[in-house]
Amino acid sequence: MLKLFYAPHTCSLACHVALEEAGAVYSSVRIDFSIDEQRSPDYLRINPKGRVPALVTDRGILTETPAMLVFIAQSFPQAQLAPLDDLYAFAKVQEFNLYLCATLHVAHAHRMRGHRWADDPAAIAEMQRKVPESVGACYDLIEREMLKGPWVMGEAYTICDPYLFTLAQWLEDDGVEPSRFPRVIEHRARMSVRASVREAIEQELQA
Amino acid sequence: MLKLFYAPHTCSLACHVALEEAGAVYSSVRIDFSIDEQRSPDYLRINPKGRVPALVTDRGILTETPAMLVFIAQSFPQAQLAPLDDLYAFAKVQEFNLYLCATLHVAHAHRMRGHRWADDPAAIAEMQRKVPESVGACYDLIEREMLKGPWVMGEAYTICDPYLFTLAQWLEDDGVEPSRFPRVIEHRARMSVRASVREAIEQELQA
Repeated sequence: MLKLFYAPHTCSLACHVALEEAGAVYSSVRIDFSIDEQRSPDYLRINPKGRVPALVTDRGILTETPAMLVFIAQSFPQAQLAPLDDLYAFAKVQEFNLYLCATLHVAHAHRMRGHRWADDPAAIAEMQRKVPESVGACYDLIEREMLKGPWVMGEAYTICDPYLFTLAQWLEDDGVEPSRFPRVIEHRARMSVRASVREAIEQELQA
Repeated sequence: MLKLFYAPHTCSLACHVALEEAGAVYSSVRIDFSIDEQRSPDYLRINPKGRVPALVTDRGILTETPAMLVFIAQSFPQAQLAPLDDLYAFAKVQEFNLYLCATLHVAHAHRMRGHRWADDPAAIAEMQRKVPESVGACYDLIEREMLKGPWVMGEAYTICDPYLFTLAQWLEDDGVEPSRFPRVIEHRARMSVRASVREAIEQELQA
């Protein structure tokens, strides 16, 4: 059985929602960031990177959100979470999720995880100061060029949707004015009422 | 026909090598970073992110290296550049490339692209100072846990290999002592004599 290691308010929600959408049988284990459990010896044996999410499978452990989302889509093809039989459409799904992972999430991470790239408190503060601008620039591109609507890829709901929804949870805390991005905010609202999303969030907050 | 937009000494080399390995018929267009051509109106119509690589296909334009590498592997299955029929093995390939893209390449980018995340010159200098440590930590994990040898995934050469080779070009300039990572350096040497790699590099430097 699949087992998801997650922490509330992190990007692991994307995989959690995707598992719900897929109708997967899975268990979940909460990692407590308040006691730095992600860097405990026990957890580092699961994911030596000291991050969530991680997914235990029958074959071994997987990390990295976009890779896990594709694995979930491919493992549960009946859920139709990605255009698996169309190489170009599949690449567009991957391209979108890569942008979230390597550009948007990275820009966001400079608000609370600046210590990854600098030690001096003044530099870390300067990174934090720029987050509204750098995260805002990502949403500009998503709003203008990438989000087709009603779902990210258009009429078909895909693994892009829970990932965008997850990162868009942080928009206000990143100091980005949501009214600049009406299509992103509509997408977030549309996602928030889906049963899969409500179930995943409820599980994470109750655990 | 496929058309690759690239710039020498950037991560676009990974896709260039993969196209050579695949035996693809393609053309290539050099983008001149010295005149900021990646942010020219003409290029922004191709890739509004203002980055390389970008791949023009019959269906449209693709960006984001890990997505493009998978597209190349899937488009030329006879080249066997990824375990396309094994969901878990495919996810491990993606996981590796995601780590390069979203952690190693991001750590490296704080040396020359700090302006993405800070404006203050002192903060940018502080980011540069930490690059040997943050990039070195990535190679620690790759050396110890990820690189199976002789190729990244073991006996099978995959799209992980040109990507690691490409980023490992920058190791010394990032201030990382190569003797700490003998397996990464062996892999780099093994790659550097492959015909695909020599051809891609020669094309990029002659253009």
